[in-house]
Amino acid sequence: MGDMGRVPVGIVGASGYGGVQLVRLLKEHPGVELVYLGGESSAGKPFSDLYPHLGHQVDLTIEPIDLEQIAARCQVVFLSLPNGLAYKMAPTLLEKGCKVLDLSADYRFADIETYTAWYGGDRNDKAIAASAIYGLPELYRDRIASAQLVGCPGCYPTASLLALSPLLKQGLILPETAIIDAKSGTSGGGRQAKTHLLLAEADNSLGAYGVARHRHTPEIEQICSDLAGHEVTVQFTPHLIPMVRGILATVYATLRDPGLVREDLITIFNAFYRNAPWVKVLAGGVYPQTKWACGTNLCYIGVEVDPRTDRVIVMSVIDNLMKGQAGQAVQCMNLMSGWEETLGLPQMSFYP
Amino acid sequence: MGDMGRVPVGIVGASGYGGVQLVRLLKEHPGVELVYLGGESSAGKPFSDLYPHLGHQVDLTIEPIDLEQIAARCQVVFLSLPNGLAYKMAPTLLEKGCKVLDLSADYRFADIETYTAWYGGDRNDKAIAASAIYGLPELYRDRIASAQLVGCPGCYPTASLLALSPLLKQGLILPETAIIDAKSGTSGGGRQAKTHLLLAEADNSLGAYGVARHRHTPEIEQICSDLAGHEVTVQFTPHLIPMVRGILATVYATLRDPGLVREDLITIFNAFYRNAPWVKVLAGGVYPQTKWACGTNLCYIGVEVDPRTDRVIVMSVIDNLMKGQAGQAVQCMNLMSGWEETLGLPQMSFYP
Amino acid sequence: MGDMGRVPVGIVGASGYGGVQLVRLLKEHPGVELVYLGGESSAGKPFSDLYPHLGHQVDLTIEPIDLEQIAARCQVVFLSLPNGLAYKMAPTLLEKGCKVLDLSADYRFADIETYTAWYGGDRNDKAIAASAIYGLPELYRDRIASAQLVGCPGCYPTASLLALSPLLKQGLILPETAIIDAKSGTSGGGRQAKTHLLLAEADNSLGAYGVARHRHTPEIEQICSDLAGHEVTVQFTPHLIPMVRGILATVYATLRDPGLVREDLITIFNAFYRNAPWVKVLAGGVYPQTKWACGTNLCYIGVEVDPRTDRVIVMSVIDNLMKGQAGQAVQCMNLMSGWEETLGLPQMSFYP
Amino acid sequence: MGDMGRVPVGIVGASGYGGVQLVRLLKEHPGVELVYLGGESSAGKPFSDLYPHLGHQVDLTIEPIDLEQIAARCQVVFLSLPNGLAYKMAPTLLEKGCKVLDLSADYRFADIETYTAWYGGDRNDKAIAASAIYGLPELYRDRIASAQLVGCPGCYPTASLLALSPLLKQGLILPETAIIDAKSGTSGGGRQAKTHLLLAEADNSLGAYGVARHRHTPEIEQICSDLAGHEVTVQFTPHLIPMVRGILATVYATLRDPGLVREDLITIFNAFYRNAPWVKVLAGGVYPQTKWACGTNLCYIGVEVDPRTDRVIVMSVIDNLMKGQAGQAVQCMNLMSGWEETLGLPQMSFYP
Repeated sequence: MGDMGRVPVGIVGASGYGGVQLVRLLKEHPGVELVYLGGESSAGKPFSDLYPHLGHQVDLTIEPIDLEQIAARCQVVFLSLPNGLAYKMAPTLLEKGCKVLDLSADYRFADIETYTAWYGGDRNDKAIAASAIYGLPELYRDRIASAQLVGCPGCYPTASLLALSPLLKQGLILPETAIIDAKSGTSGGGRQAKTHLLLAEADNSLGAYGVARHRHTPEIEQICSDLAGHEVTVQFTPHLIPMVRGILATVYATLRDPGLVREDLITIFNAFYRNAPWVKVLAGGVYPQTKWACGTNLCYIGVEVDPRTDRVIVMSVIDNLMKGQAGQAVQCMNLMSGWEETLGLPQMSFYP
Repeated sequence: MGDMGRVPVGIVGASGYGGVQLVRLLKEHPGVELVYLGGESSAGKPFSDLYPHLGHQVDLTIEPIDLEQIAARCQVVFLSLPNGLAYKMAPTLLEKGCKVLDLSADYRFADIETYTAWYGGDRNDKAIAASAIYGLPELYRDRIASAQLVGCPGCYPTASLLALSPLLKQGLILPETAIIDAKSGTSGGGRQAKTHLLLAEADNSLGAYGVARHRHTPEIEQICSDLAGHEVTVQFTPHLIPMVRGILATVYATLRDPGLVREDLITIFNAFYRNAPWVKVLAGGVYPQTKWACGTNLCYIGVEVDPRTDRVIVMSVIDNLMKGQAGQAVQCMNLMSGWEETLGLPQMSFYP
Repeated sequence: MGDMGRVPVGIVGASGYGGVQLVRLLKEHPGVELVYLGGESSAGKPFSDLYPHLGHQVDLTIEPIDLEQIAARCQVVFLSLPNGLAYKMAPTLLEKGCKVLDLSADYRFADIETYTAWYGGDRNDKAIAASAIYGLPELYRDRIASAQLVGCPGCYPTASLLALSPLLKQGLILPETAIIDAKSGTSGGGRQAKTHLLLAEADNSLGAYGVARHRHTPEIEQICSDLAGHEVTVQFTPHLIPMVRGILATVYATLRDPGLVREDLITIFNAFYRNAPWVKVLAGGVYPQTKWACGTNLCYIGVEVDPRTDRVIVMSVIDNLMKGQAGQAVQCMNLMSGWEETLGLPQMSFYP
Repeated sequence: MGDMGRVPVGIVGASGYGGVQLVRLLKEHPGVELVYLGGESSAGKPFSDLYPHLGHQVDLTIEPIDLEQIAARCQVVFLSLPNGLAYKMAPTLLEKGCKVLDLSADYRFADIETYTAWYGGDRNDKAIAASAIYGLPELYRDRIASAQLVGCPGCYPTASLLALSPLLKQGLILPETAIIDAKSGTSGGGRQAKTHLLLAEADNSLGAYGVARHRHTPEIEQICSDLAGHEVTVQFTPHLIPMVRGILATVYATLRDPGLVREDLITIFNAFYRNAPWVKVLAGGVYPQTKWACGTNLCYIGVEVDPRTDRVIVMSVIDNLMKGQAGQAVQCMNLMSGWEETLGLPQMSFYP
């Protein structure tokens, strides 16, 4: 059991970038005690072997993944693993009464057919998958609050959906015109040694990838369709940017009503996010920089209208490892625990 | 006069990034002798004071700008100055018989009304402006070859137009659907000390700027309209990327004929550029990286089709200071001089 | 007056990098209320005009610098100004009873002759300067605790002195052999637009500057001499590194006793810093990375001995804007206020 | 056989960073024809699969490594392989009459005992190893010119030795005081996917490695000893810098004659390198930036004297993949072939 009054929590998959963010956030979170770190390849190693600079604060050793054990010690479990593993572990944890937050794609889809079509695998956990709530609090706050299983959104979908939601929900755009040109730092590729993510390759260079076929596309479309009330297809293009952290989604769409001006839309965005402490809509003419969000759970949104083309251009920035991953998972945990949505999460980026 | 057989050339505005590229290219060019460097604030300084690493190859001093003098000593003059200065200098140089290549915006527009609407100023040089040829050899090779005055394209327009031209010329897309999401290294901002271009500000960050109002928009539209045969309005959004050099333009447009597949388009692009030594159309599934073009005059183009949305996505990369500026000017000079288009220009980027 | 129980504090010079760090740290500090921001060129502007991403947390406007006013409203005042201004302002503030922490070089020297020899100016405030305490808590904790005026150390001296102090204090090295090869991110140059700090110039490049004449040299020597008990001259060479934040000081010195091995020295360092919560001495064979300290007030120290040369090599890393500047000032304020040295300061860097 | 008059050359190990530099340099070199590329893991692949941006210039396929074949087709062979492989291949090539340039450590040591002590392995090729010439033309120009086998220097030794040679050769310093604090871009780690070389890890960070035990130490000491005429031990510390290319060696040493001033030393350096086209000694007060050398075969050297400490500080910069690797190999080939030392090698870095 945890400290007096603190909820005991654990992380399965503590060695990657998602893991190390969670470790830091949960160690500093006033509501929880981090009691368990699990991993496969790194089992048996002190966490400080992997991240020496955190040794003075984190005195835990990576343990093997034993689900019964984990359930016995933790009330809340974060699964921060490659796609295709969580859905084999979560059922046991749920059965034992744990709350589970999965950071992979496994529980992001309402139907497992869409999942298997894009991610492969052979799943027959229809009921559990259907019970999972999509962990984007700005859209599904109440459902998350009462969920036992949350599928945390991908990094690109988070930035894209926060930009698109007010427009789709209010019917302000022609959905089929939506184009998301997204740019991400290389930490989105995880802590895996791949040639194209080497500094020598990625630095001072820039390119698109996964054009017209990136696996975050169906995830974005699923939620867009939910918001629009009908099937929506979007254009989504990710780019790799020579920087560590941060995502910018530049979103283009044609306005239904060409009479709308920038200030109208800013008003609408502000109203839509008036109860969302982690979304900041910027004043007219101010466009967000990814660095502003770095290290925080914030999403900054800039809105522009081009009267020459009747398009709205929305720019949203997040830290891909915070609001795009670990921070959002903690935000969801806060809701699931009845705490303030902002509890224990950084509000101010350092600069520069 | 120059070396035996070499054409004497000069650069007005030799201290900036455009200038230093030109100096290097012209020093290594087998057809010319660089005999004059001019500038205002740096007049009197040895060039090697500004760029010490080139001192061993460039033994020239920046001279004051005396147009009579320049015309007496140079057959070809490059003007590499802030917007609004070239149109005051070029007339004298032209009158004296010089060939003039202007790297600013001054001679990019067929009519000076468009220029003054976006750049300001009070011009009454309609005839001279109208006589200037837009220096994009892939579109206007023959006209450049016989021009006396060339207005070299902007960096973003170069990347954007090379991506769009085959599509517009062949009528393959709905022009009003064209969206150009462009990304540039910070050297595009020139060698001027501005806070937002500091490494401490710009590194590890990313943002859009000039949304819906960047001055390269009318330049792109002017040429797109020429290609399409009617007025075309495009969406153009530039972004500042934490890197030194390079532009990627990611261009989206809806296909008129949804039956076209990627390979059809690659064939069309290859045909369009079959005589263009500086454009390389990539094989299917290969997307260009800006680093590939770095230091060369090349433009690499990748083409993708999304059958889910009936859109074509074209990605073009250039080095903004080479094909996007100084390299293209030298390419134009080659044509104006009756030389091979590739003479004296780097063909292979170093890597990584 | 401040919040119930919170000490009202102010910052003179809030617009630069030191200022914005202080703003963030003081806004999140549980012991103080930030009630005043002052500046000259930016007076009248909302702070959020300068740093839009902090607008949601910092609702203050930069005010003109009126010392009477400041003293009336603030118990503690941070001066974050260019060298040569603080010594004209501090006397008034001190007289009115404020505690003053100066982040410039003005109060770092026990005698003003050394100051004027290296920094120029015409000072006749010998007594006040002599009363200032050098704000390096790891060496002068008690004196800082009872000080009214603290001269906060420079960024390079902080990293250098934390590496050298145990060696000098214990007489383990020949002081005249000490060489400090220091490397800093470009934010050390401040938020001033200078050509050599542009991303286009500084990125992917590296060089030394101020060789044999950098103004942090006498500051380092003053404290080294104090520690050694006699005049010490050191070799100090700073380098500009293509990154935003962070300093690494690689310090070389010849051991008096060649029999000492690495583990001996690590033991000595650990003992020296056993009460220093912000210094972490690393295990044998672990060398610090600047990123580990980024955003925190920590200094990580790695120690190596080369038995082939009888030299010790000490590597210390800090965040130049935190332990090297604003964080250290807050650490000093904590001591001056009778609070825990760690109060309100970040302990864990995010990574990567 | 090659083009009329061109020497047929081959590269074994064409896929790594050393390989791709050699490919580019040899393709553009007027004296040779590149007829063979060999590799193991990449055998059978078109070179353009590995480096798509060079496909338009390099129409070669990686072939398996068949030494008889290679010798039959190539007069000059570059071995660009991990340490420990060249000494198994070179003998056959030499026997068949090829000239061999090895870029690994295999042939850098006059005696194989030193090699095996630092690199391991079980060698019994004493005679061949002893016949190899150390490929630093600025020191061993004549011997290289008549060599059949050249062991090309490491990147750090090249920068270090060019800084130290004039001092040691003239006996100007106390050799045992020499400290080399070296800084390298991450491409020095090769094109191998290692976690610590990922952009997400290495960017915006900085650290030392291999302190007091890096394998370039004995290589530096061997040549220093040769120059000094007695055994010399040096302190060598490499650092990883968040940039792609470039090395800066900051070298400290105590002057024998404290009366020497900076200008004396610059004169001595200029005299020492008066016939060395690839070394540029800078004017007093100018310190080299790594970017100046980037893409060229140049070494820029800055010299400073600190009269307070009687030390000389020499700063040398090179491009680690050019003068530090492939460029230097081509420079050696030029000498071995009786060509100008500068033939086919880039002289002017682009900037910025």
